[in-house]
Amino acid sequence: MASMAISFSNSQALAQPFPNSLKTHLRNRPRALSPNLSAALGRGRGRGRGRVSCGLIEPDGGRLVDLVVGEGAAREAKRREALGFPRIKLSRIDLEWVQVLSEGWASPLRGFMREPEFLQTLHFNSLRLADGSLVNMSVPIVLAIDDAQKRAIGNRTKVALLDAANNPVAILSDIEIYKHNKEERIARTWGTTAPGLPYVEEAITKAGNWLIGGDLEVIEPIKYNDGLDHYRLSPAELREEFDRRNADAVFAFQLRNPVHNGHALLMTDTRRRLLEMGYRNPILLLHPLGGYTKADDVPLSWRMKQHEKVLEEGVLDPETTVVAIFPSPMHYAGPTEVQWHAKARINAGANFYIVGRDPAGMSHPTEKRDLYDADHGKKVLSMAPGLERLNILPFKVAAYDKTKNKMDFFDPSRKDDFLFISGTKMRNLAKNQENPPDGFMCPGGWKVLVEYYNSLAPSENGKPREAVPV
Amino acid sequence: MASMAISFSNSQALAQPFPNSLKTHLRNRPRALSPNLSAALGRGRGRGRGRVSCGLIEPDGGRLVDLVVGEGAAREAKRREALGFPRIKLSRIDLEWVQVLSEGWASPLRGFMREPEFLQTLHFNSLRLADGSLVNMSVPIVLAIDDAQKRAIGNRTKVALLDAANNPVAILSDIEIYKHNKEERIARTWGTTAPGLPYVEEAITKAGNWLIGGDLEVIEPIKYNDGLDHYRLSPAELREEFDRRNADAVFAFQLRNPVHNGHALLMTDTRRRLLEMGYRNPILLLHPLGGYTKADDVPLSWRMKQHEKVLEEGVLDPETTVVAIFPSPMHYAGPTEVQWHAKARINAGANFYIVGRDPAGMSHPTEKRDLYDADHGKKVLSMAPGLERLNILPFKVAAYDKTKNKMDFFDPSRKDDFLFISGTKMRNLAKNQENPPDGFMCPGGWKVLVEYYNSLAPSENGKPREAVPV
Repeated sequence: MASMAISFSNSQALAQPFPNSLKTHLRNRPRALSPNLSAALGRGRGRGRGRVSCGLIEPDGGRLVDLVVGEGAAREAKRREALGFPRIKLSRIDLEWVQVLSEGWASPLRGFMREPEFLQTLHFNSLRLADGSLVNMSVPIVLAIDDAQKRAIGNRTKVALLDAANNPVAILSDIEIYKHNKEERIARTWGTTAPGLPYVEEAITKAGNWLIGGDLEVIEPIKYNDGLDHYRLSPAELREEFDRRNADAVFAFQLRNPVHNGHALLMTDTRRRLLEMGYRNPILLLHPLGGYTKADDVPLSWRMKQHEKVLEEGVLDPETTVVAIFPSPMHYAGPTEVQWHAKARINAGANFYIVGRDPAGMSHPTEKRDLYDADHGKKVLSMAPGLERLNILPFKVAAYDKTKNKMDFFDPSRKDDFLFISGTKMRNLAKNQENPPDGFMCPGGWKVLVEYYNSLAPSENGKPREAVPV
Repeated sequence: MASMAISFSNSQALAQPFPNSLKTHLRNRPRALSPNLSAALGRGRGRGRGRVSCGLIEPDGGRLVDLVVGEGAAREAKRREALGFPRIKLSRIDLEWVQVLSEGWASPLRGFMREPEFLQTLHFNSLRLADGSLVNMSVPIVLAIDDAQKRAIGNRTKVALLDAANNPVAILSDIEIYKHNKEERIARTWGTTAPGLPYVEEAITKAGNWLIGGDLEVIEPIKYNDGLDHYRLSPAELREEFDRRNADAVFAFQLRNPVHNGHALLMTDTRRRLLEMGYRNPILLLHPLGGYTKADDVPLSWRMKQHEKVLEEGVLDPETTVVAIFPSPMHYAGPTEVQWHAKARINAGANFYIVGRDPAGMSHPTEKRDLYDADHGKKVLSMAPGLERLNILPFKVAAYDKTKNKMDFFDPSRKDDFLFISGTKMRNLAKNQENPPDGFMCPGGWKVLVEYYNSLAPSENGKPREAVPV
């Protein structure tokens, strides 16, 4: 694996306002639909936060979870109440999970996992509901505390969760404290305990030996004030947007990398196939992951600039594309994590999910091989309990066709005509300010990448600086 | 953990015939039942191998799998056919799995797992059937081959499986060969990759880098000719026996240790509770595991002698107890494995399963702690997909009551009256030819244990000899 440290500066992101063209495509009024389809989609029914569109796939558990408590006076009262409880300071990743939970991405989960949910997640990648049905849940959403914090909580039943500035952001109630067996958690989530797993090193190794679960009340919506909050649409807001556009199919594309024309081909081809299947208005959810990523991934702010160019330059159609940030941190847990990526998008209204080669995969941290079999992600996804309602769309392989000077679906009968450009190769070209072949990526998007690598001041030995910890 | 190597001699087991009293309790005619209950249990309906009693819990998938091909000429033809296929020699553990599969303990599984079953087992501990329902399946039942074997198989679609004497025992058809990612298999099954897991060292570390799955046809029932085969009742034979006894509830007790009076108390108390619940004839399946066990467990032949004494001396009632051997090898995989132990007993007709503290657990191989949380086994079991039909009966804690000179349920209000005698303590007493307190174990059973440890000739440095590999 190309292991490359990068410098992440929030101020750079903040300095880049988003152009209207990008904002606009999120808010376009839908095109007219036939009366029949309008009826089928439940047009004109009640709107508002937390409402579930009748035309979209139902959230897991039947109702989208919303854990943000009231507004105004109620909010202030909650904040004062929180100050009376034992306090737990959240890391950046903890806060990302609070956002994930509060907006219902993990519906029907209503807080950090207690032990029964934790065990079901580790062993079954699913949770049993009161009615006996299963919903998918493959990564533990847990909060770790240490011995001193556990002692300080004593037999209290509620704790306050504080942000980096010590402001209370949430209350955790009816708490349960249980052992954090890190080895078992890591082995069952990643299928390895090798040192060097990014999320493990960032969020587990140094974490406390206890987990605290409970019901979460979030005092106000989580914001990062990094110039990207308007992209952080909640599942309810996304559903509202899909409904506004009269989507009769929503297909989600999870990514944590720049969009090249091969990705774009795949997305436009998916839309074409959905139209052929009889859908009238399939909408693409282009959904970059916005939480914690490893040091050599391109930072979110630069990726968002790159995605913006892809839409500005017409590679993807703003009319049928919604770009938003998925606030989850990244586990790099391959077949286990891809289930979470898919399940969360059901809650956001997607009924089609595009899955590629080796989703959420990475190189083995200590051996010269990929950590996961490249096909296991799509296989596991297609068999996962609780995801039966989701249509899985496996990737076709796209590569650069030298005879056409563009990205196209790979044709094995004339394989010498094609050029494969890996993520590592792409990053190296951009780092060296070289150009990829024409038609690999839109020029504006490529320019953003080159700018990003240019912005990294090399250290004395020629390697990029270490990442600034998030 | 007390790590103790032992000497296992099959000839000793063969030298001990089983007394009639023990054989008889397996074949007793049932006591008369009320006409109502007889009708409810479907008495008088067709008998014979493979028949499923109407009164007993349905096997997973609705029908008990039986993979033994016909008899006589058909069998001989199959044997000749096998000789024309590429050959794979089975280890002792492989052969145990062939028996497990052939008799339907893993119903509805019909052979060694192909990749879809393997992945579902690792990730979900369950398999999805064609009708969308789930059955539990928590440990991979797989057959490993190495590079040379894979090459030799080439594009053939069938292979022959040979025993230690190179006799064909089975044919595997419609085969699929896929990668054996040992690290991932171990991590997801045991929740650790620490060196020193007994099953891993015995059956995985040195095994080939490929797995071969397919449909299994077993040429004749697997026998070991060790004097214990008559105890190896198949699920069909057990169901027949429960039916013959007109059981209206069957409660299974899995064990791999000698039975002391605390175990017996638990089993008799379970029967009492089932009678209180309104069952008329609950039958105990005392079901020692008979496949691979680690070197410091008491060998099967000695355990069977000990169990025999427990019944002879009336600690358990032969009228309401069926003793049989469960042919599976042991994984020592705690909460993952206990699901397998329970699921297999559903297939044998049990609708109640007694689960103790830390089932299938052991000490961590490299750290000074138990590998699993002692309560996780019963918690995971109670939530496991596919086991909803099984009634889980958690252990009450039994200990030696010094005021009564017998094993009794622990009463925390007078905790100083009780003595806890661990398995390690029990083994040490027997090794040193000391006696446990009166009432801990029936005298005949204890004598068997002392005899066993006596039979181990100490090596020069005073430690028992290394175990003879199975």
